[in-house]
Amino acid sequence: MTLDKENVKRVFGEAYDIGLAAASSGAVADYIPELAKADPKAFGMYMLDKNGESLSFGDVGVRFSAQSVSKVIVLAAALKFKGFDETFSHVMMEPSGDSFNSILKLDTRSNLPFNPMINAGAIQTVSLLTDEVSFADLMDFARKLCRDDGITVDERVFRSEFMTGDRNRAIGYLLKSKGVLQSDPKRTVDLYFRMCSLSVTAKSLAALGLILANGGVDPISGERLVSEDHARTIKSIMFTCGMYDYSGKYGVRVGVPSKSGVGGGLTCAAKGPMGIGFYGPALDKFGNSKAAVKAMEHISRELKLHVFD
Amino acid sequence: MTLDKENVKRVFGEAYDIGLAAASSGAVADYIPELAKADPKAFGMYMLDKNGESLSFGDVGVRFSAQSVSKVIVLAAALKFKGFDETFSHVMMEPSGDSFNSILKLDTRSNLPFNPMINAGAIQTVSLLTDEVSFADLMDFARKLCRDDGITVDERVFRSEFMTGDRNRAIGYLLKSKGVLQSDPKRTVDLYFRMCSLSVTAKSLAALGLILANGGVDPISGERLVSEDHARTIKSIMFTCGMYDYSGKYGVRVGVPSKSGVGGGLTCAAKGPMGIGFYGPALDKFGNSKAAVKAMEHISRELKLHVFD
Amino acid sequence: MTLDKENVKRVFGEAYDIGLAAASSGAVADYIPELAKADPKAFGMYMLDKNGESLSFGDVGVRFSAQSVSKVIVLAAALKFKGFDETFSHVMMEPSGDSFNSILKLDTRSNLPFNPMINAGAIQTVSLLTDEVSFADLMDFARKLCRDDGITVDERVFRSEFMTGDRNRAIGYLLKSKGVLQSDPKRTVDLYFRMCSLSVTAKSLAALGLILANGGVDPISGERLVSEDHARTIKSIMFTCGMYDYSGKYGVRVGVPSKSGVGGGLTCAAKGPMGIGFYGPALDKFGNSKAAVKAMEHISRELKLHVFD
Amino acid sequence: MTLDKENVKRVFGEAYDIGLAAASSGAVADYIPELAKADPKAFGMYMLDKNGESLSFGDVGVRFSAQSVSKVIVLAAALKFKGFDETFSHVMMEPSGDSFNSILKLDTRSNLPFNPMINAGAIQTVSLLTDEVSFADLMDFARKLCRDDGITVDERVFRSEFMTGDRNRAIGYLLKSKGVLQSDPKRTVDLYFRMCSLSVTAKSLAALGLILANGGVDPISGERLVSEDHARTIKSIMFTCGMYDYSGKYGVRVGVPSKSGVGGGLTCAAKGPMGIGFYGPALDKFGNSKAAVKAMEHISRELKLHVFD
Repeated sequence: MTLDKENVKRVFGEAYDIGLAAASSGAVADYIPELAKADPKAFGMYMLDKNGESLSFGDVGVRFSAQSVSKVIVLAAALKFKGFDETFSHVMMEPSGDSFNSILKLDTRSNLPFNPMINAGAIQTVSLLTDEVSFADLMDFARKLCRDDGITVDERVFRSEFMTGDRNRAIGYLLKSKGVLQSDPKRTVDLYFRMCSLSVTAKSLAALGLILANGGVDPISGERLVSEDHARTIKSIMFTCGMYDYSGKYGVRVGVPSKSGVGGGLTCAAKGPMGIGFYGPALDKFGNSKAAVKAMEHISRELKLHVFD
Repeated sequence: MTLDKENVKRVFGEAYDIGLAAASSGAVADYIPELAKADPKAFGMYMLDKNGESLSFGDVGVRFSAQSVSKVIVLAAALKFKGFDETFSHVMMEPSGDSFNSILKLDTRSNLPFNPMINAGAIQTVSLLTDEVSFADLMDFARKLCRDDGITVDERVFRSEFMTGDRNRAIGYLLKSKGVLQSDPKRTVDLYFRMCSLSVTAKSLAALGLILANGGVDPISGERLVSEDHARTIKSIMFTCGMYDYSGKYGVRVGVPSKSGVGGGLTCAAKGPMGIGFYGPALDKFGNSKAAVKAMEHISRELKLHVFD
Repeated sequence: MTLDKENVKRVFGEAYDIGLAAASSGAVADYIPELAKADPKAFGMYMLDKNGESLSFGDVGVRFSAQSVSKVIVLAAALKFKGFDETFSHVMMEPSGDSFNSILKLDTRSNLPFNPMINAGAIQTVSLLTDEVSFADLMDFARKLCRDDGITVDERVFRSEFMTGDRNRAIGYLLKSKGVLQSDPKRTVDLYFRMCSLSVTAKSLAALGLILANGGVDPISGERLVSEDHARTIKSIMFTCGMYDYSGKYGVRVGVPSKSGVGGGLTCAAKGPMGIGFYGPALDKFGNSKAAVKAMEHISRELKLHVFD
Repeated sequence: MTLDKENVKRVFGEAYDIGLAAASSGAVADYIPELAKADPKAFGMYMLDKNGESLSFGDVGVRFSAQSVSKVIVLAAALKFKGFDETFSHVMMEPSGDSFNSILKLDTRSNLPFNPMINAGAIQTVSLLTDEVSFADLMDFARKLCRDDGITVDERVFRSEFMTGDRNRAIGYLLKSKGVLQSDPKRTVDLYFRMCSLSVTAKSLAALGLILANGGVDPISGERLVSEDHARTIKSIMFTCGMYDYSGKYGVRVGVPSKSGVGGGLTCAAKGPMGIGFYGPALDKFGNSKAAVKAMEHISRELKLHVFD
């Protein structure tokens, strides 16, 4: 696929305007006090392609917490440090059809969480790393995947998660009671909160998307961070499960492997390869960034980025 | 993407052997008496590309009932006759995470069925056509989509469905009671049974896959049967919801929009564009053709047909 | 237990005033058009004791449809015509904790309905009678149990049930698909609608309560209609399951085996033995007659009718 | 009701033999290691009436952990220390129709647990006491209710509960996350474990049953321990919810307010008033003492103790 540079620039510009307009009609997450402090009108969009060329719009440098976007990093880390077979003997890869924080299926259909993009599945995936990989190594991996040395744990967000994370604790103990969690629930959920609290930017998420889109190799440094098989696996799971209860519709309307977080982040691994990162803390009812989704719909349609185009 | 002809031929040959070996370890469906009569060792595989070139292996001419593969035809018909907006105001497009014949979500999360690939969603989609499109027109459309004038309603299968279809009747009445079904439950479920009973072949399903892969145009006749938008939509939904409770894993391991049926059929809309159709009535525990899934895993991996390759 | 006559009279009089006041704040059922025609302010209360003495207040002669009160008659008929063991091999006797028309447990915990007081359980119980007992015999039994020869099928209510009964049809077909319904779903649900449409009065329901309270013998005619074992069984199930999602609280606050219906009826089998019947079509959010429940709370407290007093 | 002494003695003797025979076919609980050490053939039965007369059979002095029987003590304590209205603003009183340790309804129907006899409801009830009542006061209350100064926390059972109680921790955190738990989940669940670990005997449970049967007054000391209203409430809830998923059937077949525990205990508050306590650690599939249930069926039938006799 070749993309006309000027056309790309024009489309992204239009998308930015569309996103900005949409931002004002959503609401920021309030289930964690720290998230409620975000500016609902903030919007940043960053595009990075394999040649290192980029487009930048709006609040691309603002740091915000990765929240569920970190589930992609956690999955990549589990695959890297524990392998495909080990990872998927502890978590499935099926869409769940339930809310991201649901525990219903754990008590009805399966002891294993349905996939690593819902809380139960991410906590289960984190448990593979808790006692096996040092936090320094995880941070190093996250920074490389996002080409962003500035990533740290946002301590205020972490404390906020910690104070209000009882449902995730319930999930951790429930998984433990079923004999599937691989480490201590307390330490596991603590690490899960830490990963959710990683401070990223729209630019970091563009790099993350690019590296996945490029089969796991950072095209700028040339370093392979994720194996080709794992990159394909991650993108497939992002496609079927990455956008909460909107994943199916997003698959139809956008068709680009993406993962959102309630901090307002969105990472997209598009054809080209091209990575697109967003920050837009005003959320729709599904928990996805309102501005980012609207912008991506425009970008995908206009640039024919849908995987089935 | 260009594919070396000899290589393609070799890979398909290997896949056929793999499929044949896998067939013997599955069991044919028995929930409808007529299906139980199938030969579990039967296996047919057919490939058709946009140039009309084909590869044919084994039982490609055996007629069998489309079963859930017909859900793709029903969805295509609803989109054609009623349009995207009208169709998706009556059925959602989210993976359900539940069994194909589940009714739980109808009583917990949403009055609208989650997607057109589960029974409730297909019955709901059929209801859009029941009083609006003649059966002759539906048959004509199905025959064209499959490039197969021999498609008829297999009356023995239909009677078998009719005799044993009480769960689908329950779904129909439940949808009616919720005020969402668009026509009489009895006539709707009757038409649903008829569509499930369409007699197809591995060859028909290869054509169906090819036309969807080719954006809705029959590349041989040149006739557009499905709009480009609708073809993209159908493939996206097949990707997230097409393989029952194995959809997520199939998306990771095969990564080709596909739809299976408990009659043993599988249709795949692959890159190329290429359509691949299978007949293998021995099923795995998810209800997918054991032979066909194993064969497709090989084909996708060797020919790099995964959408994220 | 001996009750002072004047005291009883006074308490019932107070209860009538309390019920009348409560009636005005509820709403009549509207899910069946015919029920919506009831006068929300109507209220009738009738007490009948084993000596044939009675107290009568308000609209005791108004005919209304038994609705779920008929589940008691259906259960009594199943026990009479098929016996305890046969009946309870087809339906359980556990409280369900779900709505009266729920189907969730049928698809998660058990193929058999939880108890004969929810729709699924009553339909299952009716299926034991459908092909085995003539409707004339059922009517005869119902009339004797209620000491009311005027009971007929209210044809307008029946037609209304029939027109709007798709959820009950869904339940019938679901039970059939699970292999547990004992007769044709259509005929079974038709008979279920007929039983719901039986026209009763507050006076009929007082007699029904009295006969159950008296261990199954009509104390006035001396005729045994229900065996002692069956009467005890029916009262136990009424106690745990008779008042929809309010059964537990009613058990605490009133503590008298009772069964309500959305037509506004309530039958109570109280100590004495004494039967109390109500008509009060304004319902609370649980589907119980608002006036009747309030009145019974007063009566039970003042006359110490709670089984644990 | 007057009971012939010799007859009572004969019936209890028969019941003891029936219970002993039944004991051998059940299995002791093994989900807590300490419980697995019980002797499955052990069986003790104790009857105490209001005159202080008693009958004693078998292992009546063996101490075992109260487990779910403690839910009755917890409920009585909550009612005593916090009152009816406060208690039932934090927990409902409806049968749940789900397993004792289920969390499904907490995520589907109601934030408040369905009743105090299931784990979620008992943990919620305990939370009313955690920060409000000293453990010494609770112990004092438990000892008086059971007329047993020897009750202590069995530390080995407590440690065993503590080590394996992750599901109860999950419930605690889930309730906290929903904003309904009234105290710290960790301390609350710790107290819940402590109460489950109270060491009782068949004799203690007979006294507990007697005091409830006698309207809350210890008939031997003359001390009122529970108000009449609270005793009635507790018995009503025991009747509808006391025997796990067998509550409905037990209500039909025995009809005496009772509460079982997986330690093998059963307390019954029978007419007379009479209290009957059992120890029989071999359990049936519902978690009730096999020997005790069989024995109570005989006793209730022969002595006409069913509330609806």
